[in-house]
Amino acid sequence: MKEVFIKMVLDAWNLKIKETDNLLDKLTDEQLLKEISPNKNRGIYLLGHLVAVNDNMLPLLNFGEQLYPQLDDIFINSPDKSKPITISAAELRQYWKSINLKLSGHISSLQAEEWFQKHNSISMEDFQKEQHRNKLNIIINRTNHLSYHLGQLALLKN
Amino acid sequence: MKEVFIKMVLDAWNLKIKETDNLLDKLTDEQLLKEISPNKNRGIYLLGHLVAVNDNMLPLLNFGEQLYPQLDDIFINSPDKSKPITISAAELRQYWKSINLKLSGHISSLQAEEWFQKHNSISMEDFQKEQHRNKLNIIINRTNHLSYHLGQLALLKN
Repeated sequence: MKEVFIKMVLDAWNLKIKETDNLLDKLTDEQLLKEISPNKNRGIYLLGHLVAVNDNMLPLLNFGEQLYPQLDDIFINSPDKSKPITISAAELRQYWKSINLKLSGHISSLQAEEWFQKHNSISMEDFQKEQHRNKLNIIINRTNHLSYHLGQLALLKN
Repeated sequence: MKEVFIKMVLDAWNLKIKETDNLLDKLTDEQLLKEISPNKNRGIYLLGHLVAVNDNMLPLLNFGEQLYPQLDDIFINSPDKSKPITISAAELRQYWKSINLKLSGHISSLQAEEWFQKHNSISMEDFQKEQHRNKLNIIINRTNHLSYHLGQLALLKN
């Protein structure tokens, strides 16, 4: 039963990553530089944001250090257009592939029991009262977060 | 363990419904009539689509008949602007509340084991080979679908 739960959650995550890959393949760098709607976030900001959020999953899930901690300041801690984006769309596309490859290796080698252990942003004391705040729950929440921004990025298509 | 997992999935679903409620409270009917981005879906179409998708969860989860089957033709089977929307934003807001109240009553009274039974769009034969295609998996997928369109509806805010 535990394996069935885990498969349900990981299948949904992998599907959304794949849908994002497919969308990115269709969008040109020029399209990524456009706003998803007038005066809203640009595609490149959302791509950088998604890379940075996935990168932060490494320490959160105890998989290791972030690969691109320099992205947090521009893409997580600041709204779009408040700081210059000093990285190209082409580089961000590469980072997106690299971080997902890294994550996917760790995800597929995690043992079933480990998914139900606490993640790194909750104390042992709180976790004892709130057992649902485990590593697998991070995947559920991050899949929803990815879906939210995927719906926005899809607006850049012709 | 089964209860912890069900809580994880239902918490995520309830959170997204609540975030959508909060967003709808902020948007005027006039804003809902606008496109989320030039030449893309209108807010009212997305709201009707989300009502119709939730309504379809009733038969899918064996909770009963749809409340608003007349919405399927306009909001599921046809893209926006291909058919006139013959229902007001005010009515759709009311339908959104009603369908979610109905769903939430069924969801909270379902027993833990029932969440791991097959939903109504898969044969018993297929389900025996693919146990992850259960009722709880519908909630995971519909939460992602809601998040996708919530990200789009949020663009209507000033």
